[in-house]
Amino acid sequence: MSLDESFPADAASGAASGAGRPRGGRAARRAERAAPSGPRAPFIVRGIPTYDILGEESLIRIEDAADRILAETGIEFRDDPEALDLWRRAGAEMDGVRVRFPRGMLREILKTAPSEFTQHARNPANNVQIGGRNVVFAPAYGSPFVMDLDRGRRFGTLEDFENFVKLAQSSPWLHHSGGTICEPTDIAVNKRHLDMVYAHIRYSDRAFLGSVTAEERVEDSIDMARLVFGTDFTDANCVIMGNFNVNSPLVWDGTMTRGMRAYARANQGVVLVPFILGGAMGPVTSAGAIAQALAETMAGCALTQLVRPGAPVVFGNFLSSMSLRSGSPTFGTPEPAIGSMVIGQLARRLGLPLRCSGNFTNSKLPDAQAMMEGTMSMLAAVQCGANYVLHSAGFLDGLLSMSYEKFMLDCDLCGALHSYLKGVVVDDDHLAVDAFAEVGPGNHFFGCAHTLKHYETAFWDSELSDNEPFEKWEANGSEDAAIRANRLWKARLASYQAPALDPGIDEALGDFMARRKTGTPDQWY
Amino acid sequence: MSLDESFPADAASGAASGAGRPRGGRAARRAERAAPSGPRAPFIVRGIPTYDILGEESLIRIEDAADRILAETGIEFRDDPEALDLWRRAGAEMDGVRVRFPRGMLREILKTAPSEFTQHARNPANNVQIGGRNVVFAPAYGSPFVMDLDRGRRFGTLEDFENFVKLAQSSPWLHHSGGTICEPTDIAVNKRHLDMVYAHIRYSDRAFLGSVTAEERVEDSIDMARLVFGTDFTDANCVIMGNFNVNSPLVWDGTMTRGMRAYARANQGVVLVPFILGGAMGPVTSAGAIAQALAETMAGCALTQLVRPGAPVVFGNFLSSMSLRSGSPTFGTPEPAIGSMVIGQLARRLGLPLRCSGNFTNSKLPDAQAMMEGTMSMLAAVQCGANYVLHSAGFLDGLLSMSYEKFMLDCDLCGALHSYLKGVVVDDDHLAVDAFAEVGPGNHFFGCAHTLKHYETAFWDSELSDNEPFEKWEANGSEDAAIRANRLWKARLASYQAPALDPGIDEALGDFMARRKTGTPDQWY
Repeated sequence: MSLDESFPADAASGAASGAGRPRGGRAARRAERAAPSGPRAPFIVRGIPTYDILGEESLIRIEDAADRILAETGIEFRDDPEALDLWRRAGAEMDGVRVRFPRGMLREILKTAPSEFTQHARNPANNVQIGGRNVVFAPAYGSPFVMDLDRGRRFGTLEDFENFVKLAQSSPWLHHSGGTICEPTDIAVNKRHLDMVYAHIRYSDRAFLGSVTAEERVEDSIDMARLVFGTDFTDANCVIMGNFNVNSPLVWDGTMTRGMRAYARANQGVVLVPFILGGAMGPVTSAGAIAQALAETMAGCALTQLVRPGAPVVFGNFLSSMSLRSGSPTFGTPEPAIGSMVIGQLARRLGLPLRCSGNFTNSKLPDAQAMMEGTMSMLAAVQCGANYVLHSAGFLDGLLSMSYEKFMLDCDLCGALHSYLKGVVVDDDHLAVDAFAEVGPGNHFFGCAHTLKHYETAFWDSELSDNEPFEKWEANGSEDAAIRANRLWKARLASYQAPALDPGIDEALGDFMARRKTGTPDQWY
Repeated sequence: MSLDESFPADAASGAASGAGRPRGGRAARRAERAAPSGPRAPFIVRGIPTYDILGEESLIRIEDAADRILAETGIEFRDDPEALDLWRRAGAEMDGVRVRFPRGMLREILKTAPSEFTQHARNPANNVQIGGRNVVFAPAYGSPFVMDLDRGRRFGTLEDFENFVKLAQSSPWLHHSGGTICEPTDIAVNKRHLDMVYAHIRYSDRAFLGSVTAEERVEDSIDMARLVFGTDFTDANCVIMGNFNVNSPLVWDGTMTRGMRAYARANQGVVLVPFILGGAMGPVTSAGAIAQALAETMAGCALTQLVRPGAPVVFGNFLSSMSLRSGSPTFGTPEPAIGSMVIGQLARRLGLPLRCSGNFTNSKLPDAQAMMEGTMSMLAAVQCGANYVLHSAGFLDGLLSMSYEKFMLDCDLCGALHSYLKGVVVDDDHLAVDAFAEVGPGNHFFGCAHTLKHYETAFWDSELSDNEPFEKWEANGSEDAAIRANRLWKARLASYQAPALDPGIDEALGDFMARRKTGTPDQWY
């Protein structure tokens, strides 16, 4: 059943009064009352319905195709005997590492997964609610390179990583600190997770993601979270999550499943994401890629429930397409955007929180292409009902580069989406019927009582868009949006102030990291 | 009742087989069979439902507010005694130029307006179907300035106007030649309509808009159309349309209503558009601005039906917002985008074709701001169900400038929207279930039969987006999208070939224009 079936017909008009799913609404109201340390805007509880493009019959056909893939072709779980053992005991058909799932088996297992949960932040005012009508924006994830207008493209460093954590913490329009915002390539691969988790804790007081690249790094990440939140609290609450990729098509790799199992064992959240480049890791047609993604994600999500029923898990998706001329992956194109709407419908029918889309682009600059592709993709994220939007800010160069300027432009778009998701409030006050009698035909509304009352909150006011007349824009130097974004990220870093952190916790984290980093860097691999 | 109430639940899966409203579907199939002279893509018949964000109760409240405005405050029809006479005879309450409308009166009059109609082009393969599930893209309209990267901003000339007609004709992704693409300021105001209409006829063989700025210019426009289509055909069919603005709030100016009446009298199309800048020409709250727009548009549309019942009329809308800091109008912002969805619902309940949104921006360059704002606005156009999307290409600088580069970037977005509006096709072939058995876990889909069959039509392939790897992009000169767009418009103009025009018609048009241009230019005003 769809979570949105209960969406009231007039939800948009109720948005202003805080209507919504009970937990989401309460969380949002609580968040609005609390005082966040950063300049964060109130969390988003969507005031508009999702954009559902397929009818029941088509959705059932896709689900049926996924069920056939699971039952007939099956999925391989490689290099993880424990995972195979869990499937065997759950009643799957075993054939070496190939696991086939009788129809209905995974849906039955998934009934224990929560449809909505709280990820706690070290500042409780920044706890995020994941699921239902909540929409959480987090930075992009996983680029080896960083870029800015001054220095161009280069490998990311820990300093870059920390800069982006600070920029995210400074943005009113992001809600979550993300995870591997960029790869800090100046730190050894098997140690950098420690510095990344520490940076999220030290320079942000928002929720964050931990490592996924090896089981021991997952355990380190969770151990560091325990130092911040306490062992008992961590066992009872989600305080960290990991974002795991399927090895599409139809393979769950042991590195991933061991990490997933470690988070689930600790009652922490996992986000499970097939990255299907149509024509390569899946069918070139959207319906087939979506059916495959559904099969892969259901299997992964169900595995977490075998490990620990009730552990938080997020249905993730990352559809992509391909350039016919270059053979390269493309991002921010129309097929993944419209396909996301279907993914959203399927996730709601499963009753799972959704991660989908983001501010995707293949442009190598923060230019017109970047924001045309990014906006198409990001609107799909909020329209399809994504609850957790990774890659909300900074994504450039087909995810190979994290851009300082694009980060600021994307944050601005995230701000606009706060207004967008409020929808259109319809009540006597907003209908302004009395104002028409006051103003009358041919006169202006500038000074009327209704305008004065609503003026300050009526419209989204971008920090980066230039809305001046041409002559004033020209007199100001004829700058494009990328140049303004360049100035803004520098100003933000210059004025950044770290949120307070208990010195005892800070010291404990330092000791933990020092123990994990014994030896010299050349011994770390 | 809503036109979309009959949208089948599984419409998206039917899109590929040409399902749709009978007339739209047939028109689209006919168009696909015909051979257009330009490189036009098949017309769009939407394969996805509209994005309806409000429920019945809220819609009724907005309609009720509009009815109250019409009945209590009323609308002024200035400088047009004939319009007042039409209203008097129709039973409106007259108070000087102020006209008040009893509840239900306008809806009753609007019953004669067609929910869908054909605008004929001089090349019948380019006829456009306006209404139902059809989506027609036309260039931007009305800028006094033009811009390109080489020469910057300057007043538009007839050469610029002709260039944009040629670029529109050369685009596979536009369907209509538009109207005043830019103002040819080198021609006298009272004569330039002749050159504009001629340029649309001579350099394009698509449908177009005529003049609206004075009744005699409207008559000239229709007369020129008659020379192309014949007098009898023109009386029986829509071959030209005019796009008219309300003088919001609640004033229809005589210049506009006389022009509207001239088109309606000749059985030609009118598009009626309130341009409400919230807080200035209407309430600062979206619901109030929408109620006002509904009232203004209903009154204008109904007037055309009093002139000639059954004359084609399009429900138009242009919501806008304001920058709190500068007091300037803003474009491509979230409130108008989401408000457009409501406008779409209201237009469908009236049973009228819809013009709404476009590729709006306030940026002064074809940069990241331009395409962030433009994409948000343009997606709203196609999601809200707009049938005729004026301002689909070229809009920059808050509509003050027509940009050559933005025109090409916008055309590219229009291309992407062709793919977007197809939705997700769900059938056995697209679900590719057999392909999974063929490929199996861990293998790639590059060479499988299913991929080879669908590869060429699977994904939108942008002409302007750079999808190469970074290194190749850098080796190619590190160009941004605006520079690529600059190169593309020059190449398009260089390779442009005018469609054939009957020499007799061409001569008749020349004679007509010469008669209208007697005297010297200094005598034309």
